[in-house]
Amino acid sequence: MPAENGPTLDFWYEFASNYSYLSAMRIGDLAEKAGVSVRWRPFLLGPVFAAQGMNDSPFNIYPIKGRHMIRDMERQSAAVGRSFKLPDPFPQHSLMAARVALVAIDQGWGPDYTRAVYTTEFVDGRAISDKAVLAEIVTDLGHDPETVFAAAEGPGNKARLKAQTGEALEIGLFGAPSFVTQDGELFWGDDRLEQALHWARRGTLSGL
Amino acid sequence: MPAENGPTLDFWYEFASNYSYLSAMRIGDLAEKAGVSVRWRPFLLGPVFAAQGMNDSPFNIYPIKGRHMIRDMERQSAAVGRSFKLPDPFPQHSLMAARVALVAIDQGWGPDYTRAVYTTEFVDGRAISDKAVLAEIVTDLGHDPETVFAAAEGPGNKARLKAQTGEALEIGLFGAPSFVTQDGELFWGDDRLEQALHWARRGTLSGL
Repeated sequence: MPAENGPTLDFWYEFASNYSYLSAMRIGDLAEKAGVSVRWRPFLLGPVFAAQGMNDSPFNIYPIKGRHMIRDMERQSAAVGRSFKLPDPFPQHSLMAARVALVAIDQGWGPDYTRAVYTTEFVDGRAISDKAVLAEIVTDLGHDPETVFAAAEGPGNKARLKAQTGEALEIGLFGAPSFVTQDGELFWGDDRLEQALHWARRGTLSGL
Repeated sequence: MPAENGPTLDFWYEFASNYSYLSAMRIGDLAEKAGVSVRWRPFLLGPVFAAQGMNDSPFNIYPIKGRHMIRDMERQSAAVGRSFKLPDPFPQHSLMAARVALVAIDQGWGPDYTRAVYTTEFVDGRAISDKAVLAEIVTDLGHDPETVFAAAEGPGNKARLKAQTGEALEIGLFGAPSFVTQDGELFWGDDRLEQALHWARRGTLSGL
């Protein structure tokens, strides 16, 4: 475990985002090895894309890029022994998944929940927009979906997700996953996870 | 040197592209270590972006992404002891640089020329759209600019660059740098260079 008062890294992720999925599966182990504490910060990409004039995923707006993304995900997944399945539709509506995540993070099971949602979505290819699917995941993790959903849909929690997405916009996020160090360095994309962790500790990329 | 009949990798690059620059500086050594021959294939991104409905660099169309790119380039450059300077305007008009590259590649000084152009553009921040700047580079490499430019602007060479850009579109390139293996796998982005070289040799990412 990282020492108290040691470096922390904000991990900004969106449940609909396939590259956020890759980071969610990797960041726990890598951060522990690096001695960095991770703050798991789910947010919604919709308003962030809208602020850039996009009303859909860039992978749908630029289909040729979307086709490469699927092949890239298949290759990255195969390299770690996983299959990849794009859910239909893509991207998935992720509002409820994100609301539940805030509750789970408060209660200490946020990372497990996040990984389980992503596995359901991108390995099994199931619809995480479906509350019944989320209920299965919550149950499997030993929690009561009815209680959890009630907390997730309370006005305070709804406002919290809105505020967190607002903060993402304010600090200049434009995609997911994004990593932000305590000294304000923004790293974008799963490919930058190792660099973000190194920077969180050293304030430089030297020595990586 | 890679063995004859050993694996080859097509390196597709655009002189205006800053991430192509990073790959151009790295690919020579990495490919030699990996035992892979590189085919240097300059092309023009303009028609490739136009085919996706974009009439400018995505870093200009999405300025928030552009700001992160500059900071990311500064970090990547500092990590290898280089400074980074974005030329003005960005992206640079790169038609002449690419035409000269085809001549240089034919004559065996393509990689040196490519690295010199990129260094002039992204370390010194100079305008590679300027023929006088290209003439300096060609002269420094021991060649006669007048002869080289005449070959570069001959109708055959102009048509060749057009054909090469057409091929890029046909095989589904959407950005640069891109790497294409002999078995047709497309890898996009400087972050995928190591994977592309591994795949070129093994046909899989396993063991990387």
